[in-house]
Amino acid sequence: MVKRKSLQGDYCPSARSLDVIGDWWSLLIVRDAFDGLTRFGEFQKNLGIAKNILSDRLRTLTERGILKVVASSDGGAHQEYHLTAMGRDLFPVMVALRQWGEQYLFKPGEKHSKLVERKTGQAIRLEVRTEDGRSISPEESVILKVPHSP
Amino acid sequence: MVKRKSLQGDYCPSARSLDVIGDWWSLLIVRDAFDGLTRFGEFQKNLGIAKNILSDRLRTLTERGILKVVASSDGGAHQEYHLTAMGRDLFPVMVALRQWGEQYLFKPGEKHSKLVERKTGQAIRLEVRTEDGRSISPEESVILKVPHSP
Repeated sequence: MVKRKSLQGDYCPSARSLDVIGDWWSLLIVRDAFDGLTRFGEFQKNLGIAKNILSDRLRTLTERGILKVVASSDGGAHQEYHLTAMGRDLFPVMVALRQWGEQYLFKPGEKHSKLVERKTGQAIRLEVRTEDGRSISPEESVILKVPHSP
Repeated sequence: MVKRKSLQGDYCPSARSLDVIGDWWSLLIVRDAFDGLTRFGEFQKNLGIAKNILSDRLRTLTERGILKVVASSDGGAHQEYHLTAMGRDLFPVMVALRQWGEQYLFKPGEKHSKLVERKTGQAIRLEVRTEDGRSISPEESVILKVPHSP
């Protein structure tokens, strides 16, 4: 990863988020955790990632409060990695990336995995809305820099 | 950046998106473009990024269809980088990262920039919903792997 200045002092929440999530590997691990993977070997196999990198990313994600280590659910010696509430709240980020990929990165008719409601099979969408529920475009929005009126 | 297998053949739209967006620098450039920055020097100053890296990322984002190069709007010799429709559709990704950062990465009362509707000043939120408009949690959703029923 290219060395860069830390964004943890940045006033922009997006920048801090990118800094904390760390890199794409970390977000792919989070994706797999949403998908029910819990064990080192499962992540390793699914991502095709080197063990030392995976080990580093799992430790970082745990230190940052996105994953937590729990005892194996079957009483075995393996550790399991579970999403914390903070980790689960990355769900909209994952859905946003998925939605964009579906729209732009597949040929018409090309197969892709789908995110659906378990109970009904309905597709899941992500919407950007104002407080009072109206849909809004980027052009209609603006970033208020710090300091700003509350 | 750590070398890894390409995810462009992956059936998961999130994985392809991460692959195409490239790295955090690229997404920070996209964030700045949403914020109205268009010139090389503006990105460079705002991000504190080395010129060779910025140059590389701008070229890649342009090749991938996220940015387009246009002539300077004031008739000068400078090139400008503008978001394409594909780039603008990363808006929900940016909003999702922002929302998560606001929730977890600032101390209570700590100042941060805010995304609001230009016209009304209303805060902008992002919601994950089913086709028929119900709010849904990660636990209520499931990924259908390929092949799956349409």
